[in-house]
Amino acid sequence: MTERIVLAYSGGLDTSVAIGWIGEATGAEVVAVAVDVGQGGEDLEVVRQRALDCGAVEAYVADAREEFAAEYCMPALAANALYMDRYPLVSALSRPVIVKHLVRAARQFGATTVAHGCTGKGNDQVRFEVATTSLAPELKTIAPVRDLALTREKAITYAEQNNLPIATTKKNPFSIDQNVWGRAVETGFLEDIWNGPTKDVYNYTDDPTFPPVEDEVTIQFVRGVPVAIDGVAVTPLQAIQEMNRRAGAQGIGRIDIVEDRLVGIKSREIYEAPGAMALIAAHSELENVTVEREQARFKKIVDQRWTELVYDGMWFSPLKKSLDTFIADTQKYVTGEVRMTLHGGRATVTGRKSDASLYDFNLATYDEGDSFDQSQARGFIEIYGLSAKLAAARDEKFGNGVDFGVGSL
Amino acid sequence: MTERIVLAYSGGLDTSVAIGWIGEATGAEVVAVAVDVGQGGEDLEVVRQRALDCGAVEAYVADAREEFAAEYCMPALAANALYMDRYPLVSALSRPVIVKHLVRAARQFGATTVAHGCTGKGNDQVRFEVATTSLAPELKTIAPVRDLALTREKAITYAEQNNLPIATTKKNPFSIDQNVWGRAVETGFLEDIWNGPTKDVYNYTDDPTFPPVEDEVTIQFVRGVPVAIDGVAVTPLQAIQEMNRRAGAQGIGRIDIVEDRLVGIKSREIYEAPGAMALIAAHSELENVTVEREQARFKKIVDQRWTELVYDGMWFSPLKKSLDTFIADTQKYVTGEVRMTLHGGRATVTGRKSDASLYDFNLATYDEGDSFDQSQARGFIEIYGLSAKLAAARDEKFGNGVDFGVGSL
Amino acid sequence: MTERIVLAYSGGLDTSVAIGWIGEATGAEVVAVAVDVGQGGEDLEVVRQRALDCGAVEAYVADAREEFAAEYCMPALAANALYMDRYPLVSALSRPVIVKHLVRAARQFGATTVAHGCTGKGNDQVRFEVATTSLAPELKTIAPVRDLALTREKAITYAEQNNLPIATTKKNPFSIDQNVWGRAVETGFLEDIWNGPTKDVYNYTDDPTFPPVEDEVTIQFVRGVPVAIDGVAVTPLQAIQEMNRRAGAQGIGRIDIVEDRLVGIKSREIYEAPGAMALIAAHSELENVTVEREQARFKKIVDQRWTELVYDGMWFSPLKKSLDTFIADTQKYVTGEVRMTLHGGRATVTGRKSDASLYDFNLATYDEGDSFDQSQARGFIEIYGLSAKLAAARDEKFGNGVDFGVGSL
Amino acid sequence: MTERIVLAYSGGLDTSVAIGWIGEATGAEVVAVAVDVGQGGEDLEVVRQRALDCGAVEAYVADAREEFAAEYCMPALAANALYMDRYPLVSALSRPVIVKHLVRAARQFGATTVAHGCTGKGNDQVRFEVATTSLAPELKTIAPVRDLALTREKAITYAEQNNLPIATTKKNPFSIDQNVWGRAVETGFLEDIWNGPTKDVYNYTDDPTFPPVEDEVTIQFVRGVPVAIDGVAVTPLQAIQEMNRRAGAQGIGRIDIVEDRLVGIKSREIYEAPGAMALIAAHSELENVTVEREQARFKKIVDQRWTELVYDGMWFSPLKKSLDTFIADTQKYVTGEVRMTLHGGRATVTGRKSDASLYDFNLATYDEGDSFDQSQARGFIEIYGLSAKLAAARDEKFGNGVDFGVGSL
Repeated sequence: MTERIVLAYSGGLDTSVAIGWIGEATGAEVVAVAVDVGQGGEDLEVVRQRALDCGAVEAYVADAREEFAAEYCMPALAANALYMDRYPLVSALSRPVIVKHLVRAARQFGATTVAHGCTGKGNDQVRFEVATTSLAPELKTIAPVRDLALTREKAITYAEQNNLPIATTKKNPFSIDQNVWGRAVETGFLEDIWNGPTKDVYNYTDDPTFPPVEDEVTIQFVRGVPVAIDGVAVTPLQAIQEMNRRAGAQGIGRIDIVEDRLVGIKSREIYEAPGAMALIAAHSELENVTVEREQARFKKIVDQRWTELVYDGMWFSPLKKSLDTFIADTQKYVTGEVRMTLHGGRATVTGRKSDASLYDFNLATYDEGDSFDQSQARGFIEIYGLSAKLAAARDEKFGNGVDFGVGSL
Repeated sequence: MTERIVLAYSGGLDTSVAIGWIGEATGAEVVAVAVDVGQGGEDLEVVRQRALDCGAVEAYVADAREEFAAEYCMPALAANALYMDRYPLVSALSRPVIVKHLVRAARQFGATTVAHGCTGKGNDQVRFEVATTSLAPELKTIAPVRDLALTREKAITYAEQNNLPIATTKKNPFSIDQNVWGRAVETGFLEDIWNGPTKDVYNYTDDPTFPPVEDEVTIQFVRGVPVAIDGVAVTPLQAIQEMNRRAGAQGIGRIDIVEDRLVGIKSREIYEAPGAMALIAAHSELENVTVEREQARFKKIVDQRWTELVYDGMWFSPLKKSLDTFIADTQKYVTGEVRMTLHGGRATVTGRKSDASLYDFNLATYDEGDSFDQSQARGFIEIYGLSAKLAAARDEKFGNGVDFGVGSL
Repeated sequence: MTERIVLAYSGGLDTSVAIGWIGEATGAEVVAVAVDVGQGGEDLEVVRQRALDCGAVEAYVADAREEFAAEYCMPALAANALYMDRYPLVSALSRPVIVKHLVRAARQFGATTVAHGCTGKGNDQVRFEVATTSLAPELKTIAPVRDLALTREKAITYAEQNNLPIATTKKNPFSIDQNVWGRAVETGFLEDIWNGPTKDVYNYTDDPTFPPVEDEVTIQFVRGVPVAIDGVAVTPLQAIQEMNRRAGAQGIGRIDIVEDRLVGIKSREIYEAPGAMALIAAHSELENVTVEREQARFKKIVDQRWTELVYDGMWFSPLKKSLDTFIADTQKYVTGEVRMTLHGGRATVTGRKSDASLYDFNLATYDEGDSFDQSQARGFIEIYGLSAKLAAARDEKFGNGVDFGVGSL
Repeated sequence: MTERIVLAYSGGLDTSVAIGWIGEATGAEVVAVAVDVGQGGEDLEVVRQRALDCGAVEAYVADAREEFAAEYCMPALAANALYMDRYPLVSALSRPVIVKHLVRAARQFGATTVAHGCTGKGNDQVRFEVATTSLAPELKTIAPVRDLALTREKAITYAEQNNLPIATTKKNPFSIDQNVWGRAVETGFLEDIWNGPTKDVYNYTDDPTFPPVEDEVTIQFVRGVPVAIDGVAVTPLQAIQEMNRRAGAQGIGRIDIVEDRLVGIKSREIYEAPGAMALIAAHSELENVTVEREQARFKKIVDQRWTELVYDGMWFSPLKKSLDTFIADTQKYVTGEVRMTLHGGRATVTGRKSDASLYDFNLATYDEGDSFDQSQARGFIEIYGLSAKLAAARDEKFGNGVDFGVGSL
């Protein structure tokens, strides 16, 4: 029986050509798989037909948008996941759900190999391949651009010679990846890190310099997940879409960063993630109100490691799963409402409300009703500071105390 | 000889009254110490004279602004110090430098005790007292508001009865603390955490809703410290002041947060820190360009612990000093320029340039000149993903693999 | 109705006297609660009767040994919990289960306050009181030794004057606490940290200097919990007891340490924990075989924080619970057998076996059957070392490279 | 000019053959470099001559024992470096110092490439190559065993055909690496992880089962470095050698572990490190006495990361250097004496003494002289436990409190 290869198919030139290219190079049949993670663009049925027209023996398309939002974006929100404190893991989140569908198709159609269109110097090749072997250790992987010398120029020539039903226009100056959680733009003149981004780089956000009037929004969360916006119930997907629309109109969520790639180099990236950034701002403030201090402090370390692992392609790894259980436990009381003002690139929290709040007005207030027993403070401070005090006394003993330069007063 | 107490003196009603109040309660002489950390307001000489007029036996004033900027704010910048990812440690930074001057005065004037005006439920009492015993383990501490029952009402009555040269107007609805690194506002109607802040809360920043035209600024750093702005050499203090002015005009650096206090309660705080927030944005992006990946990842953990320690009053603790050496070592190459656009509440980095950059155009580019050897990638991914793959194979063996629901395809 | 106070009752002099002492000082009725956590000594019924004879209005005794072993010691084993890398949390583990029974009795008997016999400078007062308010925030706490001036001398006088049925012999030179997980000894001549412990300090362990013949033992674990020893099924309690017996006979598990107390001072402690130490040695090696590398590395950080929290009295805190979920997830595959040799103070693992092992003979072997693809290594090393290499090139560029002193060759 | 390759030369069969093998495969001249890190065995001059006899154009031998002890082993001691809590980094420590000499020789003799004898599935290949490019980014690396198909069998044949002055006996069943810090043994029947080690595995240690009489030793440290043993001044090298001798005679420092390799697999290793393990036991207890609590707690995280980095071949990486500065700062007061009893596999601390001790007898004692103010405790506990108490009250409110099963009392 002829070997089969499942190809992550986007509908674009490179992966359309790859169908035949892989076939010729390996003798295998190609099964094309297109996964909708909210990237927009063409109708999935059109994409499916193109794959078949380009020579795929099977073409499988999946609307994974609700799955992606609920099972991939919501955990990222729970982790307030910002790689290097900035990047909300846009592409890093979509790769595992795409791979899940690739592996599913491989099993359905009896394929032995998974193929993807990534180059050999980015993060995504790692994410595709490690996710694949982490879901299905028996599957092999192949990357035609990296392993089969499929360059852009060769792709154009191949498409024209084989009359493939795909435009062979000049390449966009930028390399772009997008899904409902955000949009990533790189290469071109952005590779000079002194160059600022130009207006044509952006698509998910309007210019924050000239915003419309302020937009006030109230987001309701249950256990860390947004469930209603301005009182209207939403699914996770709808929450992201609605916030993309409203925060995008205000130019919120533009990111310009030099980033540490998994493969050891630094690269310059532009991201847009209006919904993600607004939701994270709301979620993290609701955590401030509902998560206990020591839990919150350690959660920052867990969130950071979670984010690094997901960025590094380890979505399906054992550590990632164990961190998930920690984070899930911290979300038990992250339930309540956050009111924000969206305006001119800023998503500003102005109010928060929760039945599960740990903010206690009577303990916090300096007015009537104050129930904090201030007489406890002296004892607390004395013992709390004791080990530092003993260390300080030692510093004095050894002449390492602070020099006050008293003589010069 | 009469015992002496050094009092942290602000020039305001409470500490003016405290001079006599402490004297009456303890029989000690009071030495007033006022420290200028850029809080603005009255001339220090006026403050000094008032202390004497209120009964202080000595009054010592210090212009600690350059010291505060260079030795306290710059380390916070090196640590990108944001408590709970938001608060740039405004008050937490000023307490140790004030205490240093209190202790210095205590030694100079032969005092045995340090007094401060804090209440018994805030962080600052801890910072004052732990810093004091960490600098001078032999000194005692006292807090008239907390320990000697000096309430606002009693202070007004005392001031009027004793004809103290200080206004006894109604208290500001807010409790305010400010210095050159920022401004903190709390209490009043802000104690209801659903209330948004009103315009009168702010003083360091203009309304970002109606900003002036965009302001482009270039900041030059050497080893993590800003040394020039738009080509003009600046001291640390000047850098903060200049950025306060320009970022403040754009409404940058307003923060509204529910925060975990050291004393176990949550409180609601409004901060303004235009210069600090703009400088941190620039500094952290320059780190992205110049700090190696693993160093940067671990530095986040160090930065977080450093920030917690300083928030928690442990500026002079052994761990804080050890973390300082780590951070200092990471700043060795944080040298270069960052260009930012300041506008409407946003400080947006648009360019970065450094002779010490680890961004390597030839490794990063997808165009001509690409020097990255993509053939290495397969080996890397295979070994990099091996332990996760082995764990995945075990999951499959034990029936704990991912369920793809293939039947339902 | 008369107020009631629940007292943690040991049956010894101090707490026997405390029954009446508390009653006289507060006017409340005392309910005595004795909890068996495997400390040995008198029969619980004898202890119960003594409490009543000493004036308790109610006396409640609980055999909590299985509960303690299963719900407190087993989580500590899963965390390989060794405070400061040495101390297996003996007393720190028993306090929460005792408090749970105190609170239960308080609710049953309508008490408003919990009393314990700790002094004011140890960890246990914190553990008792924080655990109490973490289980029942409405309960108050009182410590007669610390708060009601109940000294040893006063206790002897009180017992004699009131004819209490309790011996008033001279105090043991040491302060001792023991349970099935181990035994703690402090004070006396041990307070001089240059003094070595004498033979009379020990009770759970024989002298390792002159051991009996080697004892080989095989322990079977399921999900991190020992379920059989040498093929005989055991409960958690039985596992600890059996290993106490066998490891104790070999002098295993003696610990001598200067330790950081929660209250800011260092103290010198001697511990014996033969069963605990042997079980931890076996468990951690089984983890080495079955837990994935990155999961294992991060688990060390989690284990450390878990251990600190439990030592610090935070058993019932939110962070402790979240860390529990992480640790539980890591134990999913910690199933298999470990063979150890117990001899002369050493518990030495000599073999391990697991169906869930991640040790893969074919990947590890250098003999026939080797399935590791060594050709992948070059690519791995090249990319793995890339960011360090780029940093090194920068060091050279700036003259900060390593000085080889080539001239002096 | 003919290209030159510097070869890490051991004097054994494989690397003796590699001299000619590399020459034939690459056309380059081979410069042999042998570095003495205390591995014992042949005289270095004999080794040097053999290299020349086998065809090396140059042979360079270095006695790096003092350098290795002072600059590599002492930092590991300061970090209490035990990978996976067990392995004192024996081989991982020697690789960087060997590489340093290789690079030095490469520069001296004008070589472009560094060669080593490692296989393609171990850690050492990574350590050699990453260290090389981290010291000299311009140097290439080559591994004849891995890259030039130099197997054991081919080596024997080659040596015989070319009459190389080297024995071609059957290979030792084990793969062994040793230096003054310890000895590593792997492969052979040890690859079955259920097999216990046999007596012939060991060389640095006598059998702990039948030890000589107890040996008491006192080690004096200055800033974390041993400077005298039993009152006799020692260099770092002498300290390790002396403790190897005395602890080795007692069978101390045998380790048997399944270990996570950097290349993603688990392997089984036997180590002997009598001196290292005894010194670490002494050093860590002196830290317990002299390092402040919070500093000590965070240092554990730093020590772990340091150890992972060194194990992972990142000795010369930026993060390793930054961690070094942290650790160095913590050693400032690790000065004093530790008395240990060495016997039957155990190195037991029995006393510690330090002018820089933070152990304060008067605060710790329960006897006369107690200076701890116990009245502070109530306030401390109340505020210390407040955030957990508030979280507990919330648990109760939401019905998530602990279930006491009161009904069943």
